[in-house]
Formats: sequence, structure tokens, C-alpha cells
Amino acid sequence: MPKLDFDVINLGHGSGGLLTNKLLEAGVFDVLKNPLLDTHHDGAVLEMNGQMAFSTDSYVVSPVFFPGGNIGDLAVNGTVNDLAMCGAGAQYLSLAFILEEGLPMAEYWDILISIKNAAQRAGVQIITGDTKVVERGKGDKIFINTTGIGAIHPRADISMQRVRPGDRILISGHIATHGIVIMSVRQGVEFETTLTSDTANLNHTVLQLLDTFGPDIHLLRDPTRGGVATVLNEIARDAHLGVEIRQDRLPVLEEVAGACELLGFDPLYVANEGVFIAVAAPAAAEAMLEKLRSLEYGAHAQIVGEVVETHPRQVILHSQIGGRRVVNMLTGEQLPRIC
Amino acid sequence: MPKLDFDVINLGHGSGGLLTNKLLEAGVFDVLKNPLLDTHHDGAVLEMNGQMAFSTDSYVVSPVFFPGGNIGDLAVNGTVNDLAMCGAGAQYLSLAFILEEGLPMAEYWDILISIKNAAQRAGVQIITGDTKVVERGKGDKIFINTTGIGAIHPRADISMQRVRPGDRILISGHIATHGIVIMSVRQGVEFETTLTSDTANLNHTVLQLLDTFGPDIHLLRDPTRGGVATVLNEIARDAHLGVEIRQDRLPVLEEVAGACELLGFDPLYVANEGVFIAVAAPAAAEAMLEKLRSLEYGAHAQIVGEVVETHPRQVILHSQIGGRRVVNMLTGEQLPRIC
Repeated sequence: MPKLDFDVINLGHGSGGLLTNKLLEAGVFDVLKNPLLDTHHDGAVLEMNGQMAFSTDSYVVSPVFFPGGNIGDLAVNGTVNDLAMCGAGAQYLSLAFILEEGLPMAEYWDILISIKNAAQRAGVQIITGDTKVVERGKGDKIFINTTGIGAIHPRADISMQRVRPGDRILISGHIATHGIVIMSVRQGVEFETTLTSDTANLNHTVLQLLDTFGPDIHLLRDPTRGGVATVLNEIARDAHLGVEIRQDRLPVLEEVAGACELLGFDPLYVANEGVFIAVAAPAAAEAMLEKLRSLEYGAHAQIVGEVVETHPRQVILHSQIGGRRVVNMLTGEQLPRIC
Repeated sequence: MPKLDFDVINLGHGSGGLLTNKLLEAGVFDVLKNPLLDTHHDGAVLEMNGQMAFSTDSYVVSPVFFPGGNIGDLAVNGTVNDLAMCGAGAQYLSLAFILEEGLPMAEYWDILISIKNAAQRAGVQIITGDTKVVERGKGDKIFINTTGIGAIHPRADISMQRVRPGDRILISGHIATHGIVIMSVRQGVEFETTLTSDTANLNHTVLQLLDTFGPDIHLLRDPTRGGVATVLNEIARDAHLGVEIRQDRLPVLEEVAGACELLGFDPLYVANEGVFIAVAAPAAAEAMLEKLRSLEYGAHAQIVGEVVETHPRQVILHSQIGGRRVVNMLTGEQLPRIC
């Protein structure tokens, strides 16, 4: 961290004047530097050609720092992943901060470094940004918006319209980890081993799957807020088809399952950050599973169910003990400010 | 406003589950509908070709409603204008809300309608978005991020490197109005006539200027936070040249000038929303002024000064009474949360 004349963020850092300039020069511009950002204009100018995906998310996770990450890498990975779910490789991000007066510079700095590292790992450039400051008590330390652009993979053909009866539903990894980690920090629950958030960039994995399987991937979704149950319900609703899943196929870490029981959560509703759901053509599904298991963040992938013509707009879970139950969309708020 | 089962925003509206879906279906998707938004995916997919500008801003203005506008049209116009300052016509926006629990639905609805109307006036489509909710006391009613993309005008060649000694400095309209309106609302100051914020989209005006004057426009900047003084200082600093302006040429509404005196502000530091500064080739400046005065929001334009080789990195004001003084960048924070 550079030597600065201030230890905490104050309202002047959002003035657009001298203090904003000082903060940017010492921080953002130096840490994140790249030729497009370096123009210091109101926006970045770049060449784009072809089919592009465009996605935005604001991040308000609390606490800001948690086992396995912080709001900075979450904000980069989250938007990179939303683009990946469109079949796009993230190329450019914007970065907008809403800081609360009094935020310690040391925390701001740690978050900035995490942003830089997450952007490097994802292979994305941060090319334009904004910094606002609100008075103490009018925000909560730091909120971040990232908005991303990336070219659609030439072999991608992802849309709800392509979901068909018989399609298989793959989940790329252990579910419910992120939500349980955040909740355990808030409630002071301790685990025997170190459980960490699954925040990760999925773009490299998704692009490699698209290289091999292209249009056999009908739909991609990341089950963040609302969890797996909500995404499956959105698929059932928007595709006007049914979804069936098998409980014994759901990949959940033993400790996470235990914590869910302890805290009274169903892992199907708990938020994920580094997990995606793929709806795949039946003929390709087994090969896709095998490939996915060989890729980054895919080792624990499973085929958890399929799309059916019966019970349209409904998600049915086949339980371990042989029962069936309807899985609804998340109602109310289970874990506020999970991302 | 549609009939809904809720009068205020609650944490469930940010869950990503059923309540988020209800809010979106009843609100955003219906009010803002367009073919790209209607896909309801994690991001929008669109065709882009050529040189594009990309810009982001978060809006935290307080109060949320003010004479002449609200945070909704401000958020659309602000990002449209940042793109215009790159020489680009805004085409697509993302829209991300951070709502505070307890925000009355009626206020949310008014803001949403303003967003729709501002987008229509600017000719821009909102194609992807996000909604988060934070607990009461962890935000302040509503914060909005908009991030925009637009094609660079084929005749635009705007960059700090093109600023030359002799270039003229044009201001497109009355300065300091937005800041004074916000401050007067906060402090309960009343004006004899109705003074309203200058929030407006500048893209149509800028594109028409580019049609006619193309590369004779060397630089465009909108003096929002930090005001005219800060933008001129950034130009002087980054172009390594001096800037001279004449106080008697600065367009300021009489009431705004009076309020500035009353409140102890220098209009050069007060924020604007619907005003831009153009740095123009000297041979074209007079014709550009004439044209600008015939365009929307340009009636009160003035040539206020020029770029000089002497006193590099310094902005000098020639006062009405014949004196000269250095105009520095805004230090500290004059009017927090002006945009």
C-alpha cells in the first residue's frame, strides 16, 4: 500500500476534485493499469466486433471479507461468470465503487488488490470506473458494481428456447458452499476444517466446454442468489417444461450439508459463486461430464437430473429415501446480502 | 403503477427468488421492455461493430427527488453524457439498483418511469440489469449504477493529446444550476422563480456538432462533480498547457449566481448535469458556437477562454474587474452526493 495522507475514506474522495484524483492516482490507476484505463477519460474507447454479451451486477456482500475471498474478487468473478453463462469470454469490465465515509484505506487497498488479481486470473481488463462516497451510516463500507463485455464463443448457441425434453442437467461442483461460509461467519459457526467460499471465475472452464461441445450446450446458468432451486424453477417456468432431479446426485460437501442441517437451510436454496448449471443434449451429456471433471472447478461435477415433458413448470426432487417432492422457487429472503 | 401485494421494498426483493421475480415482472421488465431485455438471461447478447465507448457511473444523489428530476433520469442522462463526451451516441445501458429496505414502492415506481422516459428521450435501450436490497440503515433509499455502450461517431477524434495552444474553450450552457438546486433543497432555500436541475441528455447535441465539425472538436468533458474548475484543471494538467478563462463570459443564471453568493460557493466548483465543455480548433470555434446556440440545450453557450502555452498546468481566471487569479482544482468536498 502506498503512503497516503489519509487513513480512511472521507467525503472528499467522492468530490470529483483533488482528493478523488489523489485516491485514483495512488490506487486504482496504478494498481489496475492498462492502456485503455490509462486514458483517464469519462469512458473507454475500444474496438468490438461481432456478437457480444453485456452484463451488470452490484455487489453488497456482508461481511466484506470472508473465508476464501472478499467483495473485490467476488465482484470480478460474478460478472465474468454472468458473461460465461451467455457463452461469452469476459474481455472488459467497468468498476464502480460506492464507499462509506470512514472505510479504512487498508481495507480499500486489500479489496483493490483482490480485484486486480481476480481480473488477471480471469483474463479481463478493467477499463473504466467511478468512485462515489456516501456519509457514514448511509452505506455499508463498500458496494461495488462491475459491468462486463465479452465476445460470444463462435460455437455457442445458448438460449431458453433450446431446452428440450430429455436434456440432462449438469452441476459443475459442490453446491451451497458460498452461502454457508457467509452465514457461518455472521453466526460465528466454526467448522472442523477450513471451509472457504467457492468464488471463482468459470469462464475458462465454460469456454473449453464450448470448444468441444458447442451447440450441445443448450443453456448455462449460475445458481447464485436463490440457489439451484431458483434456477431450476426459472428453467421450468420459461421453457414450459418439467425438471426432475435426484437428491443422491447433488454434490454437497459433508460439512456444508451438516451446517445446512444445523442452521435449518436446504442446500438447494443456498447461494453459490463458483458453480454453474448446464442443460445439455442427452447424447453429449456423459462426455461433457467427463470433460468437465477434467477442467478447473469441475472435478466434482454431476449429472443431477433431466428435463421432462410431464409436469410442466414444476421441479420435482427424487429424495434419497425414494420420495418425491415439489421444489419451489425461493420465497422470501434466506440469506440477505450473500453477494 | 400496477397493483402489487407490497407497499415497500423488503429484503426478499433482493433474494434472487420469487419476490425478486415478482418485482421484476411487475416493474422493470414491463416498463422498460425491449427485445434484448426480454430474454431475461444473466446478460444481454448483441451485435457490435467498430469503435465503441464504454462508461460507468453510480448515482447516489440526495435527495432522490429534486426540482427538475430524480435519481432515475439523472442516472440515464449521466451515463449517456459520459459516452457523448467520448464522441459516442449511447445505444445500450445496463441498470443496477441497490435499494434500501423500506423504500416505498410508489417512489421506486416514479423513478422507474423517469428511467423509461429518459431512456426514450436519449434514444437508448436498457438491456440488462440487477436488483439488490440492503437492510434499513445500510443504504439510503436507492443507489443506481448505469453502464453504457455506444458507437463512436465516425468523424470524432477526441483526446487529450489533441488539445493545442490557441484552442478555444466553449461551455454549452448555464453553469452551477444542478448543484445549487440540490443544495437549496437540502438547506430549504427558496427562489423567486422555479429553479430546476439542468439534468438532460447531451448526446443529440454533441452528435450534431460532430456531424458538422468532426475533428475540429479536440476534447469534450462534462463538468459534473468538481465543476468547471476541476475539468479545466484536468485539461491543463493532462495536456501540460495553460488555460485562461474570462469571468464575464461564464454563463450563470442570475438566481444561481445570487444563491452561490448567499451560500458561499464559487459557481466554477458547483456541479452541472446538462452542460459540456468543448475544446475546439480556433478557426472553427465561432461557427461551432453559432451552431451550438441553435441546438437543444445550447442556447446559452459561450466561448469562455482558450488554451495557452504560458503557465502550463495552471488555470487563470480574468475577473470582471480586471484582476487575474489562479483557479485550482476542487479540494475537499463542497456538496456531497450531488449525483
